[in-house]
Amino acid sequence: MTDPARFELFSYWRTSATYRVRVALNIKGIEALERNVDIDAGEQLGDDFLKVNPLGAIPALIDHAAAAPAATLTQSLPILEFLEELYPTPALLPRGVHARARVRSLAAMLASDTHPLITPRVKRYLTQRGGFDADAWRAWQVQWFGTGLHALEARLAADPETGHFCQGDSATMADICLASIIVVMRVFKVEVEGIPTINRIMQRCEQIEAFAKADPRWQVGAPSV
Amino acid sequence: MTDPARFELFSYWRTSATYRVRVALNIKGIEALERNVDIDAGEQLGDDFLKVNPLGAIPALIDHAAAAPAATLTQSLPILEFLEELYPTPALLPRGVHARARVRSLAAMLASDTHPLITPRVKRYLTQRGGFDADAWRAWQVQWFGTGLHALEARLAADPETGHFCQGDSATMADICLASIIVVMRVFKVEVEGIPTINRIMQRCEQIEAFAKADPRWQVGAPSV
Repeated sequence: MTDPARFELFSYWRTSATYRVRVALNIKGIEALERNVDIDAGEQLGDDFLKVNPLGAIPALIDHAAAAPAATLTQSLPILEFLEELYPTPALLPRGVHARARVRSLAAMLASDTHPLITPRVKRYLTQRGGFDADAWRAWQVQWFGTGLHALEARLAADPETGHFCQGDSATMADICLASIIVVMRVFKVEVEGIPTINRIMQRCEQIEAFAKADPRWQVGAPSV
Repeated sequence: MTDPARFELFSYWRTSATYRVRVALNIKGIEALERNVDIDAGEQLGDDFLKVNPLGAIPALIDHAAAAPAATLTQSLPILEFLEELYPTPALLPRGVHARARVRSLAAMLASDTHPLITPRVKRYLTQRGGFDADAWRAWQVQWFGTGLHALEARLAADPETGHFCQGDSATMADICLASIIVVMRVFKVEVEGIPTINRIMQRCEQIEAFAKADPRWQVGAPSV
């Protein structure tokens, strides 16, 4: 366990990128003080949060390590790489340069090619300036969740490296990204058919406490069921 | 120099993600046989290329290392991380976990939060199904190039770690991503005002042969000026 006063995580219950960081912290047994930023109420653009991260983006992880000035880290995959470098075990990346490249590539297919298309700022643009009504926005969500997950499914189903998880039999950054997409699809009530390998891996992930505890439904600010 | 038969890069002259890989190969002095995939003609979805990468995505880097089966690597930042692990010098990441996290975060602001919004598949959706005409598509491009670059400018201008380049005085993954956005903006004739730090860093990058040689204008398939 780390010094519980070292890390502060600025987060929101339902965001995919925050979920990734939360799972990684759980896997590595790192405690972080979580600070809720209500992005539905625009708190990420308020003066208080802008002092933390002038870009108004969550997640932001503040490292209050005793020996150095506080450092604000942003962007989910770079935060995962940081945690991996600082606390190498349990590992989020496999050994072997090709296996590591494969895991990072699977992660990027979702974190870079899929998720940025479904963010609140894109929704705001399309509905306020792009002429999208609620149905058009939903079709857009379905399109990009589906494109990303079907592409991932094709790779996972074809590659012999796929095991109980995306790469072999341990959870990696790729599984964290996969789960981060599935949990927000549930929040938005979007379903994608034809992804049996992904569904099988997601079931495995949910049996791990580090993933289960990070589920949006159990976070501060989540609507009660 | 590496074995010139080891790497094969499937690429297209004007894509931002291919440019990143090309610059990284040049910085590390790695030769790769470049294979042109004409994405304006849809070649990435033809049978020949789908045998290489069933997902129809470039860049794809094939590693024909003698000791192992050929491995196909995809997604630009994971390919950069792979090259960094295989050939650590000249480095694309600084020393120090916080500095590395900062570089990866700056890179992700562009490669993950900006570029995926401006890709051909998004253009196809918005113009064919989303009701966007040419002006609406251009406004969309300007919006997201501007959002990404203004956010990056704010960080670069405020952070004492910014030097001649995004992080100190050597080019890193962050500079590669920055330049990869600027070069495609030029192809699309999109201009963003109010980014003096970025413009200063871009000028520095262009003085480096590894960047200059990778410019879209000088690649196979580029329109003659």
